Parts: sequence; C-alpha cells; structure tokens
Amino acid sequence: MKKPRVIVLGGGFGGLALCKALRRSEIEITLVDRQNHHLFQPLLYQVATAGLSAPEIAQPLRAILGQQENLRVIMDEVVSIDLTAKKVIARAHVLDFDYLVIALGAVTGYFGHHEWAEHAPGLKSLDDATRIRRKLLLAFERAENSSDPAEIARLTTIAVVGGGPTGVEMAGACAELARKVLPGGFRRIDPASARIYLVEAAPGILNTFSTDLAHYARERLEKMGVTVVSGVPVKEVGPGRLVLEDREIAAETILWAAGVEANPVARALGIELARGGRIPVGTDLALAGHPGVFAIGDIASCTDVKGVLVPGVAPAAMQMAKHVATIIKNELKAGTRCPRRAFAYWDKGNMATIGRSAAVAEAGGLEMRGFVAWLAWLFIHLVLLVGLRNRIAVFIQWVYSYITYRRGARIITGVPEDGNAPPGG
Amino acid sequence: MKKPRVIVLGGGFGGLALCKALRRSEIEITLVDRQNHHLFQPLLYQVATAGLSAPEIAQPLRAILGQQENLRVIMDEVVSIDLTAKKVIARAHVLDFDYLVIALGAVTGYFGHHEWAEHAPGLKSLDDATRIRRKLLLAFERAENSSDPAEIARLTTIAVVGGGPTGVEMAGACAELARKVLPGGFRRIDPASARIYLVEAAPGILNTFSTDLAHYARERLEKMGVTVVSGVPVKEVGPGRLVLEDREIAAETILWAAGVEANPVARALGIELARGGRIPVGTDLALAGHPGVFAIGDIASCTDVKGVLVPGVAPAAMQMAKHVATIIKNELKAGTRCPRRAFAYWDKGNMATIGRSAAVAEAGGLEMRGFVAWLAWLFIHLVLLVGLRNRIAVFIQWVYSYITYRRGARIITGVPEDGNAPPGG
Repeated sequence: MKKPRVIVLGGGFGGLALCKALRRSEIEITLVDRQNHHLFQPLLYQVATAGLSAPEIAQPLRAILGQQENLRVIMDEVVSIDLTAKKVIARAHVLDFDYLVIALGAVTGYFGHHEWAEHAPGLKSLDDATRIRRKLLLAFERAENSSDPAEIARLTTIAVVGGGPTGVEMAGACAELARKVLPGGFRRIDPASARIYLVEAAPGILNTFSTDLAHYARERLEKMGVTVVSGVPVKEVGPGRLVLEDREIAAETILWAAGVEANPVARALGIELARGGRIPVGTDLALAGHPGVFAIGDIASCTDVKGVLVPGVAPAAMQMAKHVATIIKNELKAGTRCPRRAFAYWDKGNMATIGRSAAVAEAGGLEMRGFVAWLAWLFIHLVLLVGLRNRIAVFIQWVYSYITYRRGARIITGVPEDGNAPPGG
Repeated sequence: MKKPRVIVLGGGFGGLALCKALRRSEIEITLVDRQNHHLFQPLLYQVATAGLSAPEIAQPLRAILGQQENLRVIMDEVVSIDLTAKKVIARAHVLDFDYLVIALGAVTGYFGHHEWAEHAPGLKSLDDATRIRRKLLLAFERAENSSDPAEIARLTTIAVVGGGPTGVEMAGACAELARKVLPGGFRRIDPASARIYLVEAAPGILNTFSTDLAHYARERLEKMGVTVVSGVPVKEVGPGRLVLEDREIAAETILWAAGVEANPVARALGIELARGGRIPVGTDLALAGHPGVFAIGDIASCTDVKGVLVPGVAPAAMQMAKHVATIIKNELKAGTRCPRRAFAYWDKGNMATIGRSAAVAEAGGLEMRGFVAWLAWLFIHLVLLVGLRNRIAVFIQWVYSYITYRRGARIITGVPEDGNAPPGG
C-alpha cells in the first residue's frame, strides 16, 4: 500500500512542530520552504540592531530534520495550490498530497499602502534584519560625514511605527544602540543625542497587556529617551519622512512594526479569505469542504472552541500543529476520516523586552516587570531557540553585551539599495 | 602650532597597526575606510564555507579605535589623491595631509580577464564571502531539486582556481562541507559524491612552502577527495564552465584564488605603477619624490634592504606600519626630515590549513605538519583575531564543528544574483 503523502508548507514554528509530531507515522512528509533555514523570529530585532549575527538565530532545516526518515525537505517556492486535484505547484516541483498543511506565516502589512514598504521596512526575514542593520548603522556614519545640522538631525532620528511587542523591542534596542553602544567612536556627532520615536495609532502601547504593565513599559521607554507618540495614526510615509495626523517627523530610519498580513500565497487557494488575507479554518483547523487541507499559525484565521480568536504568536502555531498532527494520526490509525476534536487555544501569556534589565510579562493572571521579567524573557528565549550551538552563541553575546555595553554585530555588510552611494554628503 | 595631519587610507592589518603605533603622538590622524569594520581576512574562507558568521571575523573600526583621542575614523571612499597639493579627495570629504599612508590592500586579480569575475568570484570582503556561501549552498539545494543527471553533476562540482594557501584552504573546506557536513539532510542526491577540483597553473601547489610540505598537503587533499590538477593553466571561465588547457570542467561553483592585484585606487596617484598595479616605494616605504607619502601592505611594491621582495601577507603589512610609524615619530621629534632607516622584512614563516586536524607550517627552517601544525594554526589565528568577543565566538564555533561535524552558518541569505530565480529545475 502506498503511504499517505503529507505536504507541509513552511518551516516556521508551526511547520516544524508538525513535522516533528508526525516523526513516527507511516507517511511520506514533504516540507517545502523558500529558505533553507528555520528562523527564530522573536530575536530578529536583535539582528537588526546589531546585537546578534544572522546565523545565530537560524538553523538549517536539513540539519534539524535530516534524521527524520519519513521526511524530505525541499527548498522551493509555492506558486499555486490546486485544492481539487490535490496538488501543490512550486517553481521546480509539482507535488501530490493526501494531507496539506499550510504554515506559511505572515509578511509585513501596510494597510494597503504597499508603497510605504520601501521607506519603512518591516522585520520578517534575516534579509530584512541585515538590511535594517545596514540602514541604521549607515545613517550614523553619514551623519558623521555631514556638516548640515538639519541633515544630521534627520540622519540621527529613528522612528518605529507600531506599539506592539515588536515595536517596543525595536525602539528600546535602537535607544540603547544610540545612547550606550555607539558613543565613543564618533567625533563630530554625538550618537547619544539621537531622537527615537515610537508611534502608535491606538491610545496606548502594548494593548494586549494590562494597563499597569503598558504604563510601566511606556515609562521605561521614556526614561531610555524614547519619545512615545500614541493615539496618532500615520498618514503618509516617504523617504526619510513620516507624516502623522498632527506632525511630521524627519527620520532617515523608519521601521515598520505596525502590522502583518497573511503570506500572499494564501490568495493562490482561490477561496474567500478572512481579515488580513488569512485563510479561514474551522475548529478542526481544516478548510471548509477540504478536510485534508489545514492552515496553522499566522496564515490561518481561527476562532477556537471557546470563541477566542487565536493570535498570531509562536505558541499558538505550535499548539495548532500538534492538534493537526493528532487529527492526521487518528485518521491514519482508523484508515478513514473520523470525528475531530475542536481546537482549544491555551494562552501561555505574553512578554516583551523593553531594554537592559527591563521587560514585561504576564501569564495566567500573574504579572511580572523589570529585572525578573527580563531574566524570564532571556531564559525562555534561550530555551526555545533551536540548536545547542545557537543557544551557547546567543548566551555569550548577551553576557558580553551586558558586561561591555557593546554589540557583537556592528558590521555594515551588503550593497546599499541606492547602489554605491557614498556615505554622507 | 597646528598639529601635523596624518591620513591613513584603509583599516586593514597595516592601517590599524599604524594608527595604534601613533597613538601617543601629538598629531591628528584621520583613518579613512570604505567599510565600517576591520576584517580578519585569513578566516574569510570559513565564512564562505559556512563555518563562521560574518560578524565573528570583523570588528567595527570605531569600536577598536574609539578611545584613541588623536584619531578620527571616517567611512568614505577615496576618489583621487593629489600628491602635489597634498590632498585626498573622497566622496564626502577633501582632506589635507602632512603625511599620507596608503594601506588600501589588494583586490582579486584575473590577469586582465575581468569578465571572469562574474563566474568565478574571489574572496576579499565579507560580501564576497556571504555571496560564495549562498552560491555553494544553493548549488546543492538545486541539485536536490533536479532530475537531470548531467545537471546534478554540474551543480555538485566545485572548482577552486589557485593552489596557494587560500586555494588550498578553500578546497579543503569545500571537501569537508560536501563530505562531512551536508550529508544526512538530502534524499535524492548524495552530497558526499560531490567533485572538488583544485586547479593550479604551476607544476605544484603551495609554491612558497618546501616540496616536502607541499607534497604532504597534496596527499592530504587527495585523501579528502579533492582532485588536484597542477601544471595546467586556465584558458577560459564561463557560467558553470572552467576551460583548462587539456580539459573542460562543468562546475556550478568556480572560486578564484589565483591572484590578487593592488587596490585600483593606486591608479589615482598618476604615477607609474609596479607589477600588479602596486605602488613602488623605496626602502623607507615612501614614494620617490614624495617623502611624506607612504604605501604599506599589499598595495605596495617594496624590495627591502636585503633585496627581498616583501610578500603580500598580514605580518609584512604590520611590520611596514611600524616602520613608517617610527619614521614619522622621529621626524616629529626632530621637527624636520631626518635620515630614514631602511625597512628589513622579517619572515615569520608560512602556514596553511588543509582541513580537520591537518595543516602545514614553516618558520625559521622549522617545519610542522598534521595535527600539531593545525593546533598551531588555530592558536595563532585566535590570538591575532581582533576583539575578545570574536575570539570566544570563533573558539566555540571551532570546538562545536570539531565535535559535531556541523557548521554554524549553513544559512542561505541575500537575494541571489539572478533575481528571484527558483532553486533547481
């Protein structure tokens, strides 16, 4: 008898957890990813702000899954999905499936203003992170080369759009970069006098946290020299120019952490999509009318059995992966479709780092802030990071940064987008 | 009295050593570099073959020299040098000098065939290294996606041109990557069956070493599965195609380690240059007729007081830097030009790693090979690496690789040169 074929699209938290959960099943798994690596997205902002190097938060999929004999990894890009013929069409492959699990995640979303992407990059891939690192570091180099005060002011202004955990982490890390890491080496400018803005359209930052914690985070950020502008939506983004309802900020570096939308591959399904281009799934995480096709993680729009809209976070993706794996295993055992349990999301809590020795966390009604929350954040992120080498490397970088106030990856690499443009002038 | 202005072009081994040697002098030093970092070039091949990540072998110039008060660093690109008016013209600056030290190093040289650069990249910068890493790793991914035997054979063939230390190190590291690191994760191809060629025009490899050591290196390489082709010059390099006098090799990855030439900025001097575009200097390391202008390191063509042509290696650049620093300090003390001692190069020896537990080294008539030479190589490179963090990080990577046969930077990043091309097909 031919073994059932399971295709998993995407090697992120969801896809990886699914592959591992099915490691003992008598099936043929094919994991398709555009990249050759699993990326630990929660630490991406530290690559963007020169704290970590790119390979430290990534692990080759073949190295993670190479020993799993019922699985092969292919590096390819999905072009379309034929739900009726049960085929995935990628650039170099056409793959038949019995089960399909779509775990392609999210991309940066600009609320329909895709033209803003050029001026306000988001942070979803290693290439995004190294591009932002280059942009950030080059801005200070250009400022040092300039003699025009207005230009220097613009070059040393950083605006982060979006007051969720990612925006808070980016703003905090940028403030520490400018105030603690860069000073010393410059002669004409003082990087410590850089202006860092955190802009949020809602009345406050960190909306998913309690008002107490959100208030604490705001105070800490302001103490670190971040100007928090909340309740003011973005009207327009141009080159070095952020236009808000009530003011305009001249900032060379504008970083976008204001929203994500589903990976556009979702459109290839030809079905009606939910908000943010997400794939609507039932409580069994399958598409209506296609019991063999599941969507998990950030690309899925799911209301669980308790009526909770499942958030786009790593623990949710991993829980969804396990749920789908159980459904597939049950059906393999039964040899036919069987009744499916409904998915119940278990909210393990939220955390966000603000900066050195300061974080906020809440879990099960318990709230933490400050140094203890920061230690908890460090510990959990080290544990979740894939690969012993990465754990050791990241741990050493953190200890080094904590002691020396230096950052290990303050290196400008890559050709700047504007060609061979000179630094400054 | 106005302080004498010393301009140093290039923050490599020579430029950095010069800046440090003048740290207590009453002068104004300006260090100009196109990059924001000092690069430890001897380990660049390990970044290219996924063993190390880019920031681990680089250190920001501002972090290294930030505390030196008589110095400022500017990140800029030199456009021309006016020897008569004593000015350096960069993109964003015009700088006057009393002393100028040109330490801009070398670039990959193709013996006039610059069109080969596209198909056979050389290894001189971090961007070169990450580009080669991407090319190497993508070739195996594409082979896994292919079903055409001839294409698979081409994709899994690597040809390294140039049998000097860099070529030997590259070929050895590629062989280990294919035979030890990659297998396990692939299902359709066997990376261990990859073909690795080391091509050298001269009759033997490692010409600067004794025939004994060169012979040992060749044997070790062949044992590791490298086909050493010597005495055969390259006729032509095309896309995936290396044409030798007596054969043609279909290789997706062709790496060029066959030669370097002086940084083309040397041409901006408007003087007659020596072989390889190098700047001819006297035994005082100054340009004829321009006693305030020095050239050191790979960009200089210098025959020392003993008649030895100074080789393009890091220790030579550092010795030249110290020599020039002494001349400048003497003249500062005297307040005028004074007689200059002639430079004498002290050959500290040669070493090259072949692979795991195997290297060759010679110093002062003493020869070493095998495990002892390899340990010596590791130790010396760790000591010479700039920055404690980098030393610790590289040490851990090496221990990790030695124990696990894995490599920590097996990550494909960056947009491939051919746009969004799919892997394979």
